[in-house]
Order: sequence, then structure tokens, then C-alpha cells
Amino acid sequence: MAFTFQINNNVEFTHDEKLLKKAKAFKPVLQHTTITSHKIVKVTKNADELGGYGVIPIAKFNTSSKPLKKGESIILDFGDHHVGHFSIHIDSVGSPMDAPLTLRIKFAEMPIELTQNSTDYKGWLSSSWIQEELIHLDVLPFELKLPRRYSFRYVELTVVDTSPKWQAVFSAPKLETETSVNTKNLKSVKITDPQLKKIYNVGLKTLQDCMQTVFEDGPKRDRRLWIGDLRLQALADYATFKDTTLVKRCLYLFGAMASKDGRIPANVFTRPENTPDDTFLFDYSLFFISILNDLMDFEPDYKVLNDLYPVAKKQIDFALTKVSPYGELKLDDNYPVFIDWSNDFDKTTAGQAILIYVLKQFINLTNQIGDDSTKYQSALDVISAFAKHDLFNQDAKLFISGPKQEFNIASQVWMVLAQVMSEKENKVIMQTTVSKLFPVKNIATPYMYHHIVEALFVSGLKDQGTKLLKQYWGKMISLGADTFWESFDPDKPNYSPYGSTLLNSYCHAWSCTPVYLIQRYLLAEE
Amino acid sequence: MAFTFQINNNVEFTHDEKLLKKAKAFKPVLQHTTITSHKIVKVTKNADELGGYGVIPIAKFNTSSKPLKKGESIILDFGDHHVGHFSIHIDSVGSPMDAPLTLRIKFAEMPIELTQNSTDYKGWLSSSWIQEELIHLDVLPFELKLPRRYSFRYVELTVVDTSPKWQAVFSAPKLETETSVNTKNLKSVKITDPQLKKIYNVGLKTLQDCMQTVFEDGPKRDRRLWIGDLRLQALADYATFKDTTLVKRCLYLFGAMASKDGRIPANVFTRPENTPDDTFLFDYSLFFISILNDLMDFEPDYKVLNDLYPVAKKQIDFALTKVSPYGELKLDDNYPVFIDWSNDFDKTTAGQAILIYVLKQFINLTNQIGDDSTKYQSALDVISAFAKHDLFNQDAKLFISGPKQEFNIASQVWMVLAQVMSEKENKVIMQTTVSKLFPVKNIATPYMYHHIVEALFVSGLKDQGTKLLKQYWGKMISLGADTFWESFDPDKPNYSPYGSTLLNSYCHAWSCTPVYLIQRYLLAEE
Repeated sequence: MAFTFQINNNVEFTHDEKLLKKAKAFKPVLQHTTITSHKIVKVTKNADELGGYGVIPIAKFNTSSKPLKKGESIILDFGDHHVGHFSIHIDSVGSPMDAPLTLRIKFAEMPIELTQNSTDYKGWLSSSWIQEELIHLDVLPFELKLPRRYSFRYVELTVVDTSPKWQAVFSAPKLETETSVNTKNLKSVKITDPQLKKIYNVGLKTLQDCMQTVFEDGPKRDRRLWIGDLRLQALADYATFKDTTLVKRCLYLFGAMASKDGRIPANVFTRPENTPDDTFLFDYSLFFISILNDLMDFEPDYKVLNDLYPVAKKQIDFALTKVSPYGELKLDDNYPVFIDWSNDFDKTTAGQAILIYVLKQFINLTNQIGDDSTKYQSALDVISAFAKHDLFNQDAKLFISGPKQEFNIASQVWMVLAQVMSEKENKVIMQTTVSKLFPVKNIATPYMYHHIVEALFVSGLKDQGTKLLKQYWGKMISLGADTFWESFDPDKPNYSPYGSTLLNSYCHAWSCTPVYLIQRYLLAEE
Repeated sequence: MAFTFQINNNVEFTHDEKLLKKAKAFKPVLQHTTITSHKIVKVTKNADELGGYGVIPIAKFNTSSKPLKKGESIILDFGDHHVGHFSIHIDSVGSPMDAPLTLRIKFAEMPIELTQNSTDYKGWLSSSWIQEELIHLDVLPFELKLPRRYSFRYVELTVVDTSPKWQAVFSAPKLETETSVNTKNLKSVKITDPQLKKIYNVGLKTLQDCMQTVFEDGPKRDRRLWIGDLRLQALADYATFKDTTLVKRCLYLFGAMASKDGRIPANVFTRPENTPDDTFLFDYSLFFISILNDLMDFEPDYKVLNDLYPVAKKQIDFALTKVSPYGELKLDDNYPVFIDWSNDFDKTTAGQAILIYVLKQFINLTNQIGDDSTKYQSALDVISAFAKHDLFNQDAKLFISGPKQEFNIASQVWMVLAQVMSEKENKVIMQTTVSKLFPVKNIATPYMYHHIVEALFVSGLKDQGTKLLKQYWGKMISLGADTFWESFDPDKPNYSPYGSTLLNSYCHAWSCTPVYLIQRYLLAEE
């Protein structure tokens, strides 16, 4: 994810070398596979695909391309989404090469990226994320190996300039894939519903391509360990690859680099060295506890718990300072709650729900480690009581949020996930949500959709959950997704939060969760 | 030089491995010096400098630049023209680096290049020669070492994009120079006239920067061994560095790769392997003989002569097939004579003169090797007689050229250099040239100016020769030249044969000849 620019240059951070050493010990060795492209495609208008563009094959790519003159280009299709390094052999034909070759190489996850000119980009996010290189080669033949890693299915090669005397010829395009996991040792999963099966497989590829030396949010853009993505990736990983070492590595990275006042930052960098970002989000800091608790649920590791429990405790202690004596969470702009990219709805109640959700998980950890949970139990009672008595509207059967007493989906979803009300009440809340607040509008993140679907499943509305899952993630596939996207609003499929789809990440961690949702709520019973 | 696009794909070439082996044996080891920049400059309007632009220093460059945000740039001044590799250390300051750095690096020989946008270039020569790179760096700090060689004095660093959270900082800019000769062992030359001294030094630097693994025409553009440049570079080299090995290497390269019909191509490539270009010029092929003869004049090497005499002979034999029984040279478009870039004057008589000029040199070689020169002496007589009787206008005291009986400077100059007439007549011809055809108009090459100045010296008009030398080369210096230019018309200083000064080569071999002219015609007598 990348949605906000907080600049908090003055925040001081801890840098716990002992924990960082453990993070390093869990660093995976990346795995590589070399694949090639056999297909030249062209972009065509296709109303059924994302942005109205798809590709059709126009030629086989056998040994080499036809010679390309100034201004000519070809698009190679590698058949599926991959993350890795690109190389290609380039030679000249015709008269001797009497000028350098200027070559533009553009990498695209989706065809729509190939229809846009990078020089036209005027969005707010750095244009330096655009996966495009301009290269001068003085002497051909040359084996071009690009040093950077890209996330792509398509590669467009454009001969920007040669001279009238010779042309460029391309051969042996190679993609050396990079990921920390492979699917070879995965048990095959039996899913009878063909659409669900497709959704599952695309989710799995999404997760795999985001699993690198950390759980990255998106291999094309950000390429970074965000805690919001990590929480969902870890759940998806337990349902599939079951690689707990990468989860532990990421927990240690966050645990080692909290701010001096105790808060876990929203994301950390690992290159050139481990560095915390100066961005803080209330819910993201708290989710450190969730991730630790989910790990203990899946495969208990008391060493990890012992190491990181003090860090977890600081998150909850800091969060509780934001709660009034009456149990009301009161946040300010310096430590906002994320919930979703959209700022068109009030997030107060959802924030309160997340605090309850995490507080319960923390008490669980406290009990496991044998710490005294009395204080936290009391806090939970007060905060839950405020939610029940002051935020729930008995008539509407919905939670309200904010000074305008707004009904919104996020409040219901998180209060249900936090299990503030009884099982029966939760079902009614979600039924009411479906009847009064559906269809979902103005939500563009698979992150928020994940929580809506999970709340439907948790409250027993399995059909509604399955329907929404198919509608949302299935729609991406029908629009051409090989991996699931960072951002998708079914009502505005071409929407980009960045002002250009060139910057959209079409393989994004927080959208991989159908593997988890399907395994946990649908397959368990199949 | 680069002035024409001949495409003769069907020409077959010899590839004499024995001669190529000798060329390889003479390949020099390049010499390197590391220099740094201490000065940040900005481009300012200056009516006295080329194109109306100069630079003024705005800050010292000490340890590092001030942090640069998106869109900001600095220009580093390395103090003089150099050829070599550039490296610089780049770091980030501010919040952690949350997006790649996009950096544009532009190399310029002259300030005017910095005022032009490469994307506006629409000229006919390949834009791939523009010395500009667009680079993405994922992780800072980074020691950026560009793999390509550039020819420059100025480096403009532009931060195309970062993110609002951090800025880029540059430090330790380095230029590792590259040339096959150094000036350390050169005897100092006493030149009392300060302007001539300056012209000499700039000519010396021009020659030095063009001396690489071959005599290059220009280190910025073409970067290639052209025979027209080589002839003048060799003469300049004998007057200064006296490095005959590089001349021999270049002679062997040409000698090894003539076309199957015997003609020496106008230029050859040496990377990735030795390859002749498919461009042929009548005078350039013949100048192979001149270069061999000039070498024998300077420092006789009978091994080289024995190896290359057969190749030289083929040039003259082929040339003589283009001569009528009455001694008239008749050329066609397939094998044109160069003389100068300009096609605004008739070149017939100048071509005839060059044939005479070279034929005399060939007879000289024939005598040295002990071959029978009777045939060539007869040819010389007939061709000279045609020139004297059919091309010289006794009334005007000038040679005519072409069907329109045009008087032009090139005809007089080359007939004088070829010594077709007596010493006395030559003086009259050049006096008439000065009074009737001067000032020189519409000549933009130092190559042609060189021959005009030399003809003035040769015919005894030393003051006129010195005056023109100072006017022409001195004017380049007053316009800001650190090295002499490929192209310069004093009446149109901003002229570019390529439609943009971005493509002009401001350090070009064929303009270095003042060192030769001064040494031979002015210093010998001082």
C-alpha cells in the first residue's frame, strides 16, 4: 500500500540489534526459475478487459525478432505474471552499426499500462516507480541484463533510434523469476467450483510473487513490508505455503524498530539497511499484536512470543492512553486510523472495534505468557461497553459512527469481527448491512473487501460472503487479472488512486486473501 | 566526420588477418587520470560566446551538493574538455527513501548543449548520439559508475523524481580521463604570440582527446577512424606527440579491409570487431597513400611500406581508371569526391588536383620501394597537362571548375597544394584567390580551412595564412572553445549540419591542425 505521506522527521527510533539479528537469521534464500517468451502480442481494444484494452497474439517468437528500425517496437508476452530480472540478446543487421542504439524497455503487469505514455504521467506518486528504462548501447551484439527487478508479464521493446544504415534484432529474452517460495511442494487443493478455483489460483500467485526477502506489499511498487499487508499475507500463507519463518522475520523487523515512545511504524525498509519509516497508523501498530497472535494460533513459538510480547504490550498500552474513562477511543490526526483508503466515511467506530479486536488477542497472548491480564480485561470491558451502549443503534440494528451518527459498512464489519455483540446479534447486523448498506459503494481496496467478506462468513452469512468474494475477485479475473490488484472499485474499474494506472500495482499482497477465505470458510466444510 | 549515408550492403571486403594482427600489435594501452569538479556553474546568456550562452560559477563544490528535490538540478564544471568515464556518489536525506530515484545525467562539451532539450531534437543524425542518460536507482547510497565513455566538460545532474519525503545528495564526482597519449613528456613549445600560443594549446588538447585506441574523428560522436581525419591527425601528431605506432595501427586497419575491388573505405570500425564501413569517397581512398607517404617522410619504416605498398598501388590504379585519355578525371555518384561538406561549389577541379597531389606521393613511394614508376609518371604528366591547359584560366589567374567554369577556393587551394604550377604562379594564384575569392564564404569545416591556410603558407603568403588561421581558430576560442570543433562557419557560428548543436562534435580531429601548421610554417623559422 501507499496512500499517505506522513513526514515525521523528528521521531526517534529504537534499533534492537538482538531482534534484528533474529530477523536476519530468518531471511530466506530466494528461488529462481528461468523462463522465456514465445509470443509477440499487440494491444487491442477490448471492452471486456481492464480499461478497455487486452492483447492478442500476432506472431510466435522463435529464435529472433524481425529487424526493428527506428520507432518500431514489439511486445513480448511471458504468459503469466512474474517478478524477476530480464535479459535479452541484441544484435544489429544491415550496414555496420554507425551510431549507438537507443532502446526503451517497458515492463507491464497489465495491457492497459502499455497504452499510456510515461511522459504524460502527472500523478502525485513518484514517477520513478514507472517500470521503464531508456538505454544506450554503443556496441552490438550485446547481452543486456538489467540490474533492477521488475514485476511484469509483458515487455515492450522500442527502438527509439538507430541510424538509417542498420536495424536491431532481439533474441533469447529471459526472465529469471524471484520469490522465496515455490508451489512444487504444495498439496493440491480440491475446489469443485470452477470460479472459486480460478480465484484461489490467482490469489496463490499473488501471494507467491509478493513473498520475497520480506512479505512485500507489491513487487512493482512500494516493494516494502507494510504491517497491514503483512497481517493478511501471514493468514494467506498459513492457508497455503505455511512458511512461518518469513512471518517471524517480519515480526522481528517490526519489533526491533519501534519508535522510542513504543509505537510500531506502519512499514519498514530493509535496503540498504533495516530502517523504520516515519509513518504511523493506529490500527497498523496494533496489528503487530494480531500477527503475533495469529502465528501462535497457527504454530506456537514461545521463543518468538517471549521476544516480542514486550513490544506487543507497548502497542496496547499506548493505544489505551487514547481511550477516555468512559471507554471511548479518541484519536487525533497525528496517529490516524487507516481502515481503508477512502476518507469518505467516518472511521471512529471501526477504530474502536479494531481496538477491541486486538485487545482480545492481546489478552490471549498475556494468558499464554502468564502475565497479569486484569488491567486489560477491565479496559476491554469498558471499551466494549461503550461500543454496545453508545455506538449501537438498537432500532437500526447497526452501529453508528462519528458526530453525524453515520451508518457505514466498515463500522459493522469491524464490530462483527471484534465480536462485540452476540453471535445472533452479529448475524442480524450483517443481514442489516446487506439489506441497508449494500451494494458496497466507493470502496476501492481488496483490503476492505476482505474484511467485509470475512465478517459475512464469521456471522454465518456464507452465501452472501461467497457471492461477494466471487463478485469482487472474480470480476478482476474476468477483466484480465493474472494476479490480484492493489486497488479495484467494480463501479470504476479504471480508477487509479495515483492519477494513472501506470502507477497501479496489479499484484498486491492485501488482495491475495481469497486463498485464506476459501480455505478457512469454504473448504474446511467441503 | 559524419556527413553522408551511403548504403552499399552488397560490397564485398577483404579481411587480411596478417595485417590485422599487425594492427593489433600496435594497439596502445590507454592512459587514465582521475580528476574531480570543484565548481557548480549555471548557464547564462552571453552574446560573446557560442550560441549566446556561457557559464558563470555559482558555488564551490566541496564535499557534497545541497539536497536536490524533484525537478532540481546542478551543473558541475570539470574545468576543461575531457574524454572518459564519470562516477558519482549519491545518497538520500530526509525521511527514508520510499521510491526510486530517477536521475537524468547530461554531458556537454559546450554550454549551448545545456540549453537544449534532447526530446526536441528532430535532426537527421541519430539522436542516440546525445550524451544523456536516464537512470533509476532503487537503493541509496549508491556509487554510480556509468559504463559508457563521454566527451565533456560539464555534467548536468537533474533529479527527475524522488518523493516528497526525501532529497538526493551528490558527492565525489569523478572523471577518469582516457587517451592514448599524455602531455607530460612533450617538449614545451615557445610561441611568443599569445593568440597563436592559445590556438596551439587548444589544438593539442583536441588532438590528445581524439587519440584513443585509434585516431578517432570525434570522441563525442562517430568515435571512429575516418581516413580524412586520420591524414590530418597524423601530421599533427608528428608535430607534437610523435606517436607513430598509432598511425601505423590505423594504416594497417585500413590496409587490411579494402573492398574486393581494391578501394579503401572511408572509415572502419574496431568494435566489437574490425569492420569496414560501406562508405567510399574517391579522395579518402587516395589519402591512404598520403598517410603512408607522410609517415615515410617523418620516420621511414620499410616494413610498413612493404606491407602496405600493394594496397596503396591498388588505390592509384583504381583512381586512374576514372581518368580519360586526355587526363581528365571523371567521377560518378557511386564514388564521389569529398573535398568539403558543402555541396554549393563544383568539386571537379579540386578532385583532379587531389589525384595529382597523391600521384606524386605515390611515385615517391614507388621510388622508395624500387618499383617501376614509368606508368605513373606518364599518367601524372597527362593529368597535370590537362589541369594546366584545360582548367587554368590565364586571364583570371585562377583555375576553373565544372561545366559552368566556376572559380572557387577549393580548386585553387588543391591545385596549389598539388604544385601543378610553378612556385611563382602558385603565389599569384593564391594572391588572386585572396583578392577575388576572399573572404571565405559558406565553408563550415576546419578541414577545408586547414587546406586554405596551408595553401597560403605553401605559396609564400605567410601573413595571409597566419591571419586566416588566427581569424578562424582564434574565433572559436573567443567563442569559448576548449577544443576545436567539427564544424564552424564564422558567419553562422550557431550552424549545425545536423539540425541541432546537441549533435555537434566540439572536439574534432580534423580541426586540430593548427599545431601542425604553426610548427611547420611558423615555428621552424622563429
